[in-house]
Amino acid sequence: MLEIAFQPDRSRREPVYRQLEVYLRELVASRRLAAGERLPASRELAASLGLSRNTVNQAYQALVEEGLLSSHVGKGTFVLRPPGPALRPVSGAGARGFAWAGLFSRRTAGTSLPPALRAGTRAPSPAFDFRAGQVDPGTLPGPELRRAFGRALDQLDELARFRDPRGWPLLREQIARSLVARGIRCSAEDVAIVNGAQQALDLAGRVLLDPGETVVMEQPGYFGAALAFAAAEAHRVGVGVDREGLRTDELARVLRARRVKLVYTTPAVQSPTGVVMGEARRQALLELADAYQVPVFEDDYDCELRYGTPPIPALKTLDDAGQVIYAGTFSKALFPGVRIGYVVAARPLLLQMAVSRMAVDFHTGVVGQAALAELLASGGLERHVRRVRRIYAARRSVLIEALREHMPEGTEFVEPAGGNTVWVGLPPGVDPVALHAASLEEGIAYGRGDLFFLDGTGADHALLSFAQLDRRKIRTGIQRWAALVRRERERSQQSV
Amino acid sequence: MLEIAFQPDRSRREPVYRQLEVYLRELVASRRLAAGERLPASRELAASLGLSRNTVNQAYQALVEEGLLSSHVGKGTFVLRPPGPALRPVSGAGARGFAWAGLFSRRTAGTSLPPALRAGTRAPSPAFDFRAGQVDPGTLPGPELRRAFGRALDQLDELARFRDPRGWPLLREQIARSLVARGIRCSAEDVAIVNGAQQALDLAGRVLLDPGETVVMEQPGYFGAALAFAAAEAHRVGVGVDREGLRTDELARVLRARRVKLVYTTPAVQSPTGVVMGEARRQALLELADAYQVPVFEDDYDCELRYGTPPIPALKTLDDAGQVIYAGTFSKALFPGVRIGYVVAARPLLLQMAVSRMAVDFHTGVVGQAALAELLASGGLERHVRRVRRIYAARRSVLIEALREHMPEGTEFVEPAGGNTVWVGLPPGVDPVALHAASLEEGIAYGRGDLFFLDGTGADHALLSFAQLDRRKIRTGIQRWAALVRRERERSQQSV
Repeated sequence: MLEIAFQPDRSRREPVYRQLEVYLRELVASRRLAAGERLPASRELAASLGLSRNTVNQAYQALVEEGLLSSHVGKGTFVLRPPGPALRPVSGAGARGFAWAGLFSRRTAGTSLPPALRAGTRAPSPAFDFRAGQVDPGTLPGPELRRAFGRALDQLDELARFRDPRGWPLLREQIARSLVARGIRCSAEDVAIVNGAQQALDLAGRVLLDPGETVVMEQPGYFGAALAFAAAEAHRVGVGVDREGLRTDELARVLRARRVKLVYTTPAVQSPTGVVMGEARRQALLELADAYQVPVFEDDYDCELRYGTPPIPALKTLDDAGQVIYAGTFSKALFPGVRIGYVVAARPLLLQMAVSRMAVDFHTGVVGQAALAELLASGGLERHVRRVRRIYAARRSVLIEALREHMPEGTEFVEPAGGNTVWVGLPPGVDPVALHAASLEEGIAYGRGDLFFLDGTGADHALLSFAQLDRRKIRTGIQRWAALVRRERERSQQSV
Repeated sequence: MLEIAFQPDRSRREPVYRQLEVYLRELVASRRLAAGERLPASRELAASLGLSRNTVNQAYQALVEEGLLSSHVGKGTFVLRPPGPALRPVSGAGARGFAWAGLFSRRTAGTSLPPALRAGTRAPSPAFDFRAGQVDPGTLPGPELRRAFGRALDQLDELARFRDPRGWPLLREQIARSLVARGIRCSAEDVAIVNGAQQALDLAGRVLLDPGETVVMEQPGYFGAALAFAAAEAHRVGVGVDREGLRTDELARVLRARRVKLVYTTPAVQSPTGVVMGEARRQALLELADAYQVPVFEDDYDCELRYGTPPIPALKTLDDAGQVIYAGTFSKALFPGVRIGYVVAARPLLLQMAVSRMAVDFHTGVVGQAALAELLASGGLERHVRRVRRIYAARRSVLIEALREHMPEGTEFVEPAGGNTVWVGLPPGVDPVALHAASLEEGIAYGRGDLFFLDGTGADHALLSFAQLDRRKIRTGIQRWAALVRRERERSQQSV
């Protein structure tokens, strides 16, 4: 019979008995151990593999319960005929292959990961990581998160019974309470939990947009919104951004010209420019939305991170008619991987979104929701946000200072009032694609501006986050990057 | 000035300082405390409210940092002018209302929660809850879950940096290892994590179905699949189920008559009938799928719960061409609220699903993924599944026995080989709607059969789960239900 040449891997977290069980299961399923074969007695196998007899017994027992082995006192342990065909690889050799590509739906067939994002997903962590969308793991409140998850699991019975697509009631209540800081008075009934602000965008697209209908976005604007509206097969129209935010004069022209089903905006901290929408613009935006009866999606993604004066309250606070869909997220206050965000909106819309979620994924994972409710209720999240606000404020100052000191003339940027990114206009005469590649080679990563435009322009901008690097690294990184910018500019001038 | 009439609620989990902070923030934001007003010294306020001075100081400090109060040593604490308009209710009186209903997209405008589901979401827990889709919270491995989440949070740095739409690598690896038990040999690269099997259905619909294209489903069949394909605006065609599972003769007729983009099936434990698809049927199904080049979605939702002989390996193991999309979930092995499932499929499809997820919600919450990886690696999940399998096997026997003993002649049901439900055909002459209502009144809840049919038929069936009730309650519940069935039958015979 086959020799059982199992070697435990003690560096794995799996107990050895389970490693042996997985190993034996594979031998049986692949027919390398034939039906009817007798396995060594547990005492023998334990001795030959240098394991405890108990370990071998546990592995055998698991496979007996599974019906792959039979065990008779005094006779030994035998391999049963495994059901069905032999184990076979999923994507194996000999597969004729299936013509998947010809089957993809219109809404996905053309799409692929944006190049900037694709690179980001795969590349090893660069030494100077200025890419946006991440947080500094070192700042996270580990012990408080641990306590919060522990308290969540204290409610295991309720977690196991939970099935409301609108979310965990205690979290909805805590969010409603905390929104007073954004000027919004609402109850848990006005809040729905989603898998991050991205799902709020996706659901808004599903519920409000038929293929070919028009959605207006800021340009430059958040690429995640562009993805969600593309997936809804909507017609996306860009409207410019200036130092006061979304240009309502341009919006008015679009609204006059065509039926618009949704306007997407980031008034608190425009993504990616960091501009705050002024009060007059807010009024003008809502007047237009009212006149044309268009819902407005307010993405308040970065509301916790702001510097200087208190923030202007949410656009939602000016919303007389209930036509603003307000979305927030814990991706920035904690970290993106938690995938928990929320929507505050009029009841008919919230209900329609909840109905949609039954088809999509029922609801957001409830353990994380319950843990977040505990973290909010204990004040732990607010303490954390206050702390990172101070850390990020210092890093922001260092980045701005370094840009001022090192970047060549012609570089443009605005000190952001919130968030953790700076939108940088490169000086004329720099090839942005060459610069991006050269920077990556030197271990400097940042977001290319064209990711934030629908028409592929904007590569002459760069988005730099100051969230992940300490002050020393920010200084060194910018110093090196500025040298690259100069070098690329000289190179392109020479080649003219 | 306004009296500060704060009363701490000591039953809440929120610390008192945070309750006071929330209270004061609301006073400022709503203008009930006017700009310029001086707040009582912390010592005074503490005395008048019966709180510690530290509590008051903490609340003041939070609002100072937020820019709502200013504090000067020796002068006191003053209210600043809060930015923007006064706090206003979200769905308040005076709102003119916004005509949401006219704006909903075609794919959602017609949809609403299925009545049976709607009742289920809201109703208080009935005394005899035979509804499907839930587990018995009392069986859950609390301490092991706690350890698993603790170990997950040990990796907080990696969790915070994670952003792969395909899921947490360790979980994908553990799932690949555990799938050997289903006859599937694959690597982590063949696995993608999703928010429960429902999201696998939604993504398959998004990626493969354009509006109006045809998907084939079993009838009766899983209502969640029906919802997902409706949301994709697909044309859903039902194919009957007999004691061998999906009727391939009917499928062949459909395939001859029209182009089909996807076939959905539940071979291991047909949902809802509990029938196991025989080996010949499996071969016939894949031959048809191959001949017509149609992908097959294999929903192996209940593979862990089976009784008697070892289960037939997954349909995926017969899949030469790589055209079977295999989906599994932890909703049954643990509980539905974890919202974690997985897909094993050919790489082109997995990649297209990952691209789609960037627009949908990026990825599944990573803390839960990491915790589940730990639970799998430790063998804890398998131990739990073995334990609940024994518990459910006993409950299944009791339910079957009780049905045999108490239900009137003409009642039909098949002993299920797996899962935790029994599909019951009501005896002729019973009004199923009246019976369902009468049962609910007596505290007996179950799934109405019409939920599982596309055409509204099937109400003469009931789906009963034995997962949530202990043996005594199953017996009593069925005894009472049988009495109701008899009563309803007599009533309808009298009224004829």
